[in-house]
Amino acid sequence: MTRSKSDLDLHGRSESYFPEAPPDAVAYPETTEEVAQIVSVCARHGLPVIGWGTGTSLEGQAQASSGGIAVDFSRMNRVLEIAQEDMTVRVQPGVTREALNEELRATGLMFPVDPGANASIGGMAATRASGTTAVRYGTMRDNVLALEVVTAAGGILRTGTGARKSSSGYDLTGLFVGSEGTLGLMTELTLRLYGQPEAISAAVCGFETVEQAVQTVIDTIQCGLPMARIELMDTDSVRAVNAYARMDLPEKPHLLLEFHGSPGGVTEQAESFGALAADHGGSGFDWATRTEARTALWTMRHNAYYAILAARPGARAVVTDICVPISKLAQAIEETRADLQEAGVPGPILGHVGDGNFHAVLLVNESDPGELARAKAAAARMVERSLALGGTATGEHGIGVGKLDYMAREHGTGWAMMGAIKAALDPGGIMNPGKLVPPAG
Amino acid sequence: MTRSKSDLDLHGRSESYFPEAPPDAVAYPETTEEVAQIVSVCARHGLPVIGWGTGTSLEGQAQASSGGIAVDFSRMNRVLEIAQEDMTVRVQPGVTREALNEELRATGLMFPVDPGANASIGGMAATRASGTTAVRYGTMRDNVLALEVVTAAGGILRTGTGARKSSSGYDLTGLFVGSEGTLGLMTELTLRLYGQPEAISAAVCGFETVEQAVQTVIDTIQCGLPMARIELMDTDSVRAVNAYARMDLPEKPHLLLEFHGSPGGVTEQAESFGALAADHGGSGFDWATRTEARTALWTMRHNAYYAILAARPGARAVVTDICVPISKLAQAIEETRADLQEAGVPGPILGHVGDGNFHAVLLVNESDPGELARAKAAAARMVERSLALGGTATGEHGIGVGKLDYMAREHGTGWAMMGAIKAALDPGGIMNPGKLVPPAG
Ligand SMILES: Cc1cc2nc3c(=O)[nH]c(=O)nc-3n(C[C@H](O)[C@H](O)[C@H](O)COP(=O)(O)OP(=O)(O)OC[C@H]3O[C@@H](n4cnc5c(N)ncnc54)[C@H](O)[C@@H]3O)c2cc1C
Ligand SMILES: Cc1cc2nc3c(=O)[nH]c(=O)nc-3n(C[C@H](O)[C@H](O)[C@H](O)COP(=O)(O)OP(=O)(O)OC[C@H]3O[C@@H](n4cnc5c(N)ncnc54)[C@H](O)[C@@H]3O)c2cc1C
Repeated sequence: MTRSKSDLDLHGRSESYFPEAPPDAVAYPETTEEVAQIVSVCARHGLPVIGWGTGTSLEGQAQASSGGIAVDFSRMNRVLEIAQEDMTVRVQPGVTREALNEELRATGLMFPVDPGANASIGGMAATRASGTTAVRYGTMRDNVLALEVVTAAGGILRTGTGARKSSSGYDLTGLFVGSEGTLGLMTELTLRLYGQPEAISAAVCGFETVEQAVQTVIDTIQCGLPMARIELMDTDSVRAVNAYARMDLPEKPHLLLEFHGSPGGVTEQAESFGALAADHGGSGFDWATRTEARTALWTMRHNAYYAILAARPGARAVVTDICVPISKLAQAIEETRADLQEAGVPGPILGHVGDGNFHAVLLVNESDPGELARAKAAAARMVERSLALGGTATGEHGIGVGKLDYMAREHGTGWAMMGAIKAALDPGGIMNPGKLVPPAG
Repeated sequence: MTRSKSDLDLHGRSESYFPEAPPDAVAYPETTEEVAQIVSVCARHGLPVIGWGTGTSLEGQAQASSGGIAVDFSRMNRVLEIAQEDMTVRVQPGVTREALNEELRATGLMFPVDPGANASIGGMAATRASGTTAVRYGTMRDNVLALEVVTAAGGILRTGTGARKSSSGYDLTGLFVGSEGTLGLMTELTLRLYGQPEAISAAVCGFETVEQAVQTVIDTIQCGLPMARIELMDTDSVRAVNAYARMDLPEKPHLLLEFHGSPGGVTEQAESFGALAADHGGSGFDWATRTEARTALWTMRHNAYYAILAARPGARAVVTDICVPISKLAQAIEETRADLQEAGVPGPILGHVGDGNFHAVLLVNESDPGELARAKAAAARMVERSLALGGTATGEHGIGVGKLDYMAREHGTGWAMMGAIKAALDPGGIMNPGKLVPPAG
């Protein structure tokens, strides 16, 4: 446990535009039992407990809005057991997705979920994260099979089993995934793994309009092409990554693609995609199977957030994250672009369009409250638009404090039901208070 | 609402060995509002409310253990909206999986989850059902995107949105799926659909031992072959279906297989599988692309339960349903066979082995209490074995009353947590009392 200023500062920050909110102390447990002890003590004294993975969440989830103890999982970062035949792995929450895949490399297996940041597996589960590969491999909801959890009372609970599926009672694993540390702390996770594909090829393809790119995506999904990745970057995003990563993509909307399968299957997929893209005016479609070319492409994509930030020196980001039925995706993007233009808010758009999910990264000069207000208003309109089109306020980033205001609108009485579940499992309200659920009372 | 004897009798029965437990009345609502009214009245009077789909659940889930009103959804059986581009469908709970696929046929889309019975979608969601295709397309957990629910207080709640994924708060949809009507009644479901595969081929393959068949399954899954179906039938099961469906499979363990994909992909998959099977002594492997041959094969598989029942005229079934990590599957099956043999309980084995899930259908002469007791004891040992091997008491059939006794053992303090959630969402304890959760205390 430490109370050093640098530790408190670090754990009070967010990646996004939220003001600092440091905890009163930071703990670095090394075992589940230590976590249980910390939570027990906090329960006795009514002190808030906030889990901390790598602090990359974008809605202020890991900040200590009302003080308390930050439980930093960086020392619980071991890969505990790789079950090769079962294609599962048991890990501690602090391991990052890159470190995990590094350990898996020699086994021929991989864990595909890949938020842009090198986040911790615990933080990813807590925010129900996803990324570029969800279109093929699913989100954390689909890939967490079992958990060990320290409950709000400081008890140790196991959810799920080693079996692939189960009909044994309420899905507690699924309840903790996406709960943002408001119901308990995950101290161990069993994840589903996948075979590293025999063959991989990656591609980019330019379009004259976002509409054409999106129509290509719809056709691709509909005809059942098992895309491993299908990402959109609009012209502004392309401009930003060209500048940041010294790429030379034509300045127009692009799809970034990846195909996984057997060598023959990958070729077949790429050809089928090429034909669909050509139908919608796609140009410059070309695919690469060389590892370096692919790595360069996805590193560029994963750094796109920083590239966009760099496009406006000194700016902070209001990151939006809507997800709509795919039939409404072109409309949602088009209306968003028009709205941002009218509001004068710079906001390059990019996203995991195979899932109907996209982000506008709204760039604001922090010291100008007018700008922040305008960006927040535009972000709110995006959410309204998403809900009106049958979508959600957040496809993958979660609620934290940043999206609390939309919960009643999205869930109606479901939000109160979340509050009732929270009250039942954390009656003292100590687990990450102020996030996700309605204020107690 | 009716109280006719035939209605009460029908809704007091179970497909399995449980004694009758009729409700006090049966309602046949036609709208969500009617369901809400029924539940409101029951809430006011503290009367039990039990949902009823098609009554095919195997653990007594739909029986009225403590009387009350059975809410039969057979008149809420419409397909409300097929969203072609989004590949989703909104249905009422009473539609059966076959009726749904009939309506989908012309669209090129399909809903793959297929328990052996022609169950209702509501019942399937409530039991978190799966079937032969879960290995490729997932279970009800993976394929229910959104719900309309009548809560225990008689309110109407919507969970989820039209988006493919979301990080917006607790996963209420996932909480209701698998809750067996103990938290509320589902009055509308949005399901994920899939494109009907361009090409399909089906196959059977015989093995000398179950062990060899299972090792073939493990290799198949590990090397990433996207099997659409991979089912095991042991020698006794093969004998039963040969007699019942006039098949002439060699009397040895068999795998039943299906491949979905492009014409080239399906051929490639079948060839890869054939090579793996040959490595493990598989014989008679042959694949058919003719629709009639495939239909005959899967009709036979879906009727296997009745074929096994018919193998012992007059018998009832104690159906078991364990699911283990796939690395433990051969051991689990082998030990089960040896145990049943020693106990003198006839119990053909078959299962969804790609998921590690299998059933021994224990045949008992109902009028011999000794037999029932021996079968139940053997079923209990199967569960013990499954849990010891890191598996679950039920892969797909659920808890109902039949598996209540194993909940504490499988979930530890998690079972109490389920009770706490139940108490929070149904404080009056009117929703399907006596099932799934601990007795209210
Ligand atoms: C450049 C960039 C790109 C990104 N791209 C994506 C993307 O593509 N997709 C996506 O989904 N997200 C993305 N994110 C957001 C972020 O990476 C994810 O939200 C990630 O899951 C957060 O993980 P973390 O380890 O940083 O968690 P933290 O930020 O440390 O914590 C997140 C939440 O989880 C809780 N928590 C942490 N550990 C535990 C635990 N063990 N038990 C219980 N609760 C715990 C915290 O209390 C907090 O509420 C991006 C962020 C950045 C900065
Ligand atoms: C021959 C045979 C083969 C089978 N094979 C399989 C298999 O392969 N895989 C598998 O998973 N199962 C299988 N089963 C079991 C059974 O088919 C499933 O459990 C199925 O999901 C039950 O659906 P149902 O409509 O019959 O539900 P019911 O039996 O009517 O009800 C099941 C439960 O759901 C509740 N319920 C029903 N409707 C609603 C609603 N709208 N809202 C809330 N709760 C509701 C009921 O109260 C009850 O608790 C098989 C059964 C038989 C007889």
